[in-house]
Amino acid sequence: MSKELTTRAEDYSKWYNDLVVKADLADHSAVRGCMVIKPYGYSIWENMQKALDKMFKDTGHQNAYFPLFIPKSLFEAEEKNAEGFAKECAIVTHYRLKTDPNNKGKLIVDPEAKLEEELIVRPTSEAIIWNTYKSWIQSYRDLPILVNQWANVVRWEMRTRLFLRTAEFLWQEGHTAHATKEEAIAETKQMLEVYADFVENWMAVPVVKGVKTANERFAGADDTYCIEALMQDGKALQAGTSHFLGQNFAKAFDVKYVTKDNKQEYVWATSWGVSTRLMGALVMSHSDDNGLVLPPKLASIQVVIVPIYKGDEGLAKVSEVANDIKKKLQAKGISVKYDDRDSQRPGWKFAEYELKGIPVRIAIGERDLANGTVEVARRDTLTKETVSIEGIDSLIENLLTEIQNNLFEKAKARTQQLTTKVDSFDEFKKILDEKTGFILAHWDGTSETEEKIKEETKATIRCIPLNNEQETGVCIYSGKPSTQRVLFARAY
Amino acid sequence: MSKELTTRAEDYSKWYNDLVVKADLADHSAVRGCMVIKPYGYSIWENMQKALDKMFKDTGHQNAYFPLFIPKSLFEAEEKNAEGFAKECAIVTHYRLKTDPNNKGKLIVDPEAKLEEELIVRPTSEAIIWNTYKSWIQSYRDLPILVNQWANVVRWEMRTRLFLRTAEFLWQEGHTAHATKEEAIAETKQMLEVYADFVENWMAVPVVKGVKTANERFAGADDTYCIEALMQDGKALQAGTSHFLGQNFAKAFDVKYVTKDNKQEYVWATSWGVSTRLMGALVMSHSDDNGLVLPPKLASIQVVIVPIYKGDEGLAKVSEVANDIKKKLQAKGISVKYDDRDSQRPGWKFAEYELKGIPVRIAIGERDLANGTVEVARRDTLTKETVSIEGIDSLIENLLTEIQNNLFEKAKARTQQLTTKVDSFDEFKKILDEKTGFILAHWDGTSETEEKIKEETKATIRCIPLNNEQETGVCIYSGKPSTQRVLFARAY
Repeated sequence: MSKELTTRAEDYSKWYNDLVVKADLADHSAVRGCMVIKPYGYSIWENMQKALDKMFKDTGHQNAYFPLFIPKSLFEAEEKNAEGFAKECAIVTHYRLKTDPNNKGKLIVDPEAKLEEELIVRPTSEAIIWNTYKSWIQSYRDLPILVNQWANVVRWEMRTRLFLRTAEFLWQEGHTAHATKEEAIAETKQMLEVYADFVENWMAVPVVKGVKTANERFAGADDTYCIEALMQDGKALQAGTSHFLGQNFAKAFDVKYVTKDNKQEYVWATSWGVSTRLMGALVMSHSDDNGLVLPPKLASIQVVIVPIYKGDEGLAKVSEVANDIKKKLQAKGISVKYDDRDSQRPGWKFAEYELKGIPVRIAIGERDLANGTVEVARRDTLTKETVSIEGIDSLIENLLTEIQNNLFEKAKARTQQLTTKVDSFDEFKKILDEKTGFILAHWDGTSETEEKIKEETKATIRCIPLNNEQETGVCIYSGKPSTQRVLFARAY
Repeated sequence: MSKELTTRAEDYSKWYNDLVVKADLADHSAVRGCMVIKPYGYSIWENMQKALDKMFKDTGHQNAYFPLFIPKSLFEAEEKNAEGFAKECAIVTHYRLKTDPNNKGKLIVDPEAKLEEELIVRPTSEAIIWNTYKSWIQSYRDLPILVNQWANVVRWEMRTRLFLRTAEFLWQEGHTAHATKEEAIAETKQMLEVYADFVENWMAVPVVKGVKTANERFAGADDTYCIEALMQDGKALQAGTSHFLGQNFAKAFDVKYVTKDNKQEYVWATSWGVSTRLMGALVMSHSDDNGLVLPPKLASIQVVIVPIYKGDEGLAKVSEVANDIKKKLQAKGISVKYDDRDSQRPGWKFAEYELKGIPVRIAIGERDLANGTVEVARRDTLTKETVSIEGIDSLIENLLTEIQNNLFEKAKARTQQLTTKVDSFDEFKKILDEKTGFILAHWDGTSETEEKIKEETKATIRCIPLNNEQETGVCIYSGKPSTQRVLFARAY
């Protein structure tokens, strides 16, 4: 069939791109660096959104919506943040087209419709939001503000890859305002935990929680917390970040509040986000050379039923049983598709649903009917089993839980196997090139050393793990003393 | 209190704007013509989205996501559509800022980062979507495509009003592709019915279903179907449109399919959308001089419970009963807020929840406890009643249904009262100025007459009602013969 994938061993990067396109998750578009998220891919993103949105609301947050555009003067108000994003901004300069006098039926930008002040298409919304919060916050009674936004953002990346790095992407960005530093830090950490919970328990992807070094921090943050995951090729992927913004934005936008004892204080801030990049992490964590492998909790179709039959009469007999099973599964809250199309053969359907990562496939043949059995196939292990129709709803329900757990345990074992403690720079380079993965090594704590290591190896410090074990050691690069190991890797 | 509204009689337009801002639905932003949708307003929009999204999925549609930007060459491909939107487009011309050499800490657009081809921020997505469909559609087996997108769009309107007309707004846009003309027309009509169902049965706003005249048609459509609603001030508001696009986009983007008998045919298209404008319709249909009035099916808080007490002991007693009632109501799927804040007095809370349109308020005083009663107040009628706590959950459940129905019936009676059959142009002008509302009048069917009437009266033909009664008559303007009355009004 034409949907055959490049294998991972052949070319991991091509395998990824092939898979995303052929499994109907997303595709390239006519706009440089922008993708089209296809219905099947979007249905998985919707499941992610639903789970995350509930977690945000359960922790007291509300959704809101702020403008797509940021006037340049607001954009540049928080200087570090502006500097961090200035080089990758889409900029609106005009608000009208007119017909081209020299070219019938064509349009040109109307030079008379030039904006007085350019508008930046949001790469992130701190500036426009903190400018708004200024009018929302007067006293301590107005705090905290716990707001999230689901939105599109644009960062003009030069090298793009479907889901992993695109010029436009979808995300959520939480922006909270607090009376005290302690409360803001607690919020930052809480949201990191929410992200870790989601990525591990829904996406079945194990993560390392940590803090970024000053070099890798979000532009405008005092501290950036992050979760880092390891992909099958041994490269790291930053799956989510939660920033403690200190009073930087409050100062840039002059957002003060009156305390209980009637003093004026600047407000404390956090922001936190995950994006459609998670779709890339999901694909790269679990999938194989046959296609996508989806964790049941995020699959939009959890079970597919394929009939194997001859003639209309055969189909009618099989369908009766299939529809009965479908109903029983749906009653358990399981999402089921019964594919009785006669335009495709069972073998084609098997391959198609393997490619699309449907967790469980049930095949029902005419012969099965006499025996009261069906064939159940697991996508994660590619194993098949003949089981009794009696009690199949409970069996499938348990199987879905087992698959969800198995995917997580498999990814966890891989991450552990690919995490290496290293004590010399030679070993560091060797592991990076040959074994790949996470490397725990001593570092002297300077940006200089961090940059040198990056230049020489393309590895970055992914994070300083939270609750890191303290141990004396020497920096693998400078030989200077160090008190803890940090997490290095080459990253997406 | 400072939250007092301008009354409708005083200044309807100011009343509307006051209400939107003071009830915390939305606010103006630092970006010309763009609004901030505040958490309370957004929670109502989320309820609208949820209901509509389910209706779309129940009719076989899937969500997807297409790029925010449209390259100019694609934008201009369907000429009528391009012409229709050219005058109100935000245009991205550059992709980088740089530090201003003459002004420390400031940024300027980097002239070296000019795009080769300008990008239009989507005012609607037909162009980018049909350019994508070209690669999705080869044969009749790929049809129909039934896709919807939830997105932000930008139309550079010169005169903006919160929700009703903003430069950026949120909407959904369905874009479907079909093998036959009949199927596409059936889809167009089906989605009009979905919209009418939603607006009438969820928003409690009665609508007239109809077809636009050629003048008022969507740019690029062969036919535009619409639903029109009448606001309290007698002005019409277009609440949703569903377009039969013929083969216009298929031809512009060369999208053909192979039929069953192996012929090449152009694909037939529809598109349909509703936007955050519906929030404006919701506000203007039901609200009064005390504030918002929300239909229970869209209210994010359906019932608020306010305790009336003295001292901590009093609060404890009332809270026990209040929490018990809250639980019972929640068990019925009713969304309840118990406001036991001690920072505000009951009177303040009553006014606040009236302003915010909470359908039902339950007040519980210490005296009530002895009697086993509470006070139940309806927002729609502003009436109060003392009721027994026994069976209150069923009582409230029925009351919410009653309020939903009452709001619809009230709006329907108003619309009927404000719909006038008129047979002369003098009467037409008099009714428009004095009575206002919908006017049913004979029209000769020409664009010329339609434009003249618009010039002289600012009234437009809102639609030719579906299933219109056929009757002979003469055009109120030209005196030429006519076979049916059409619906005129001044509109938002």
